[in-house]
Amino acid sequence: MASFTEVTDPADPVLADYRHLRDVQLRQSIEAEHGLFLAEGEKVVRRAVEAGYEPRSFLMAPRWLDGLADVLEQTDAPCYVAPEALTEEVTGFHVHRGALASLHRRPLPSVAEVLAGARTVAVLEDVTDHTNVGAVLRSAAALGIDAVLLAPRCADPLYRRAVKVAMGAVFKVPWTRLPDWYDALPQLHDAGFTTVALTLADDAVELEAAVAGLDRVALVLGSEGHGLSARWQEAADVRAVVPMRAGVDSLNVAAAAAVACYVTVRRSG
Amino acid sequence: MASFTEVTDPADPVLADYRHLRDVQLRQSIEAEHGLFLAEGEKVVRRAVEAGYEPRSFLMAPRWLDGLADVLEQTDAPCYVAPEALTEEVTGFHVHRGALASLHRRPLPSVAEVLAGARTVAVLEDVTDHTNVGAVLRSAAALGIDAVLLAPRCADPLYRRAVKVAMGAVFKVPWTRLPDWYDALPQLHDAGFTTVALTLADDAVELEAAVAGLDRVALVLGSEGHGLSARWQEAADVRAVVPMRAGVDSLNVAAAAAVACYVTVRRSG
Repeated sequence: MASFTEVTDPADPVLADYRHLRDVQLRQSIEAEHGLFLAEGEKVVRRAVEAGYEPRSFLMAPRWLDGLADVLEQTDAPCYVAPEALTEEVTGFHVHRGALASLHRRPLPSVAEVLAGARTVAVLEDVTDHTNVGAVLRSAAALGIDAVLLAPRCADPLYRRAVKVAMGAVFKVPWTRLPDWYDALPQLHDAGFTTVALTLADDAVELEAAVAGLDRVALVLGSEGHGLSARWQEAADVRAVVPMRAGVDSLNVAAAAAVACYVTVRRSG
Repeated sequence: MASFTEVTDPADPVLADYRHLRDVQLRQSIEAEHGLFLAEGEKVVRRAVEAGYEPRSFLMAPRWLDGLADVLEQTDAPCYVAPEALTEEVTGFHVHRGALASLHRRPLPSVAEVLAGARTVAVLEDVTDHTNVGAVLRSAAALGIDAVLLAPRCADPLYRRAVKVAMGAVFKVPWTRLPDWYDALPQLHDAGFTTVALTLADDAVELEAAVAGLDRVALVLGSEGHGLSARWQEAADVRAVVPMRAGVDSLNVAAAAAVACYVTVRRSG
């Protein structure tokens, strides 16, 4: 059972994990230094704990205690209870769904572990926006992608905003960070995957045709602004495109990823 | 040629169209009363004007004048030139891409006009979030949907945030507002469309199978939180689902819409 402590002073040092949640840079250094991440909202907090992440603490208004009672019963972590106004003062923003938890990160699995048994994986190059990373993870999980690999410069999927947008999918779909950018795609090829890069390049073929008949596929997605690097476009086995109407701006990365995951997972054998 | 006026006083009444851009409620009444909408960013401003919307005025920092010179040459509207700090003070937010324009709305076309010649249309029920409306419009335009119909309670596609997320797709794809909510789907059926509602209902069939062989299709999409109303689910000719992995939260509305548009536009004849 969690230990419950009422907090009345916003400067109370027990709330250190929850400070300045809107300051991305500060949060990144706090979270890296302490090996923690934040979950926000009853549903996401529950999913993080159920996925086996160990809570450091909880922070919530009294009205959320009941809904999370079963979660709080299974942990020894402290639960700080505070009015919403105090939580807002500490975190720096309006906490919509009331409950927050700070949890311990875990060591990332190796690429080989994540790839074991996977038939279709998504590889994100430099998706630096937390919302986009979260959205892609949510779609990937829902549409049946087996695992996700993130290039070194991708945004952190355990950053609060990414976790929230992903609705906890980051706890469901196996993922890890690629240690090496330059040779990532050749290494995936050597591991038995056909690497299919989504690009607007002139020689790109329609995705549905590109993936038809392939066994193991690594679907490679880039950032919205710049797309994939030249290196990754060249290093991929296949360059493919989601066919679009002429004269219209390309899909945003989350929409393109959703369509591409759908098409690739359901490719004809 | 636009007439250029330097503005130095943030209280200058000529800037009335640009005030309080973050106050959604206030903006809705200002824009309705004056029949205007705002375009933000060089690309979106250009697209609005090129699509034939008549500018009321422009507001931008000096550094944007060159990039929009050809657009400004074709209009008689005033162009207010002001430092970015002043624009931020007037609008209430940081204007990322510098240029703003206020444009006259046009009377919406009738449903019959929008449907004329269309083979695949999207129908949005109560998508009340401007970001989602913009994202769906962008995907619909890019993936080849011929027209979009909005239920009476849908968010305004010409609201600044929707226009921006849609990257101007709202100027490309024909759209209008449905006058009637209750009988909207039966009326589309009578107009020769098979109405296919995207839903997680138990009797929903896989979308790809649901649309195969259909001639004219109206793809019906609801809001993220509540999905389609019971009325629309019952009134639709077909209930369909994008197949998802068990135990994972459903796709968000923008991702689901992208996949559904892709599948429906490319249905087998």
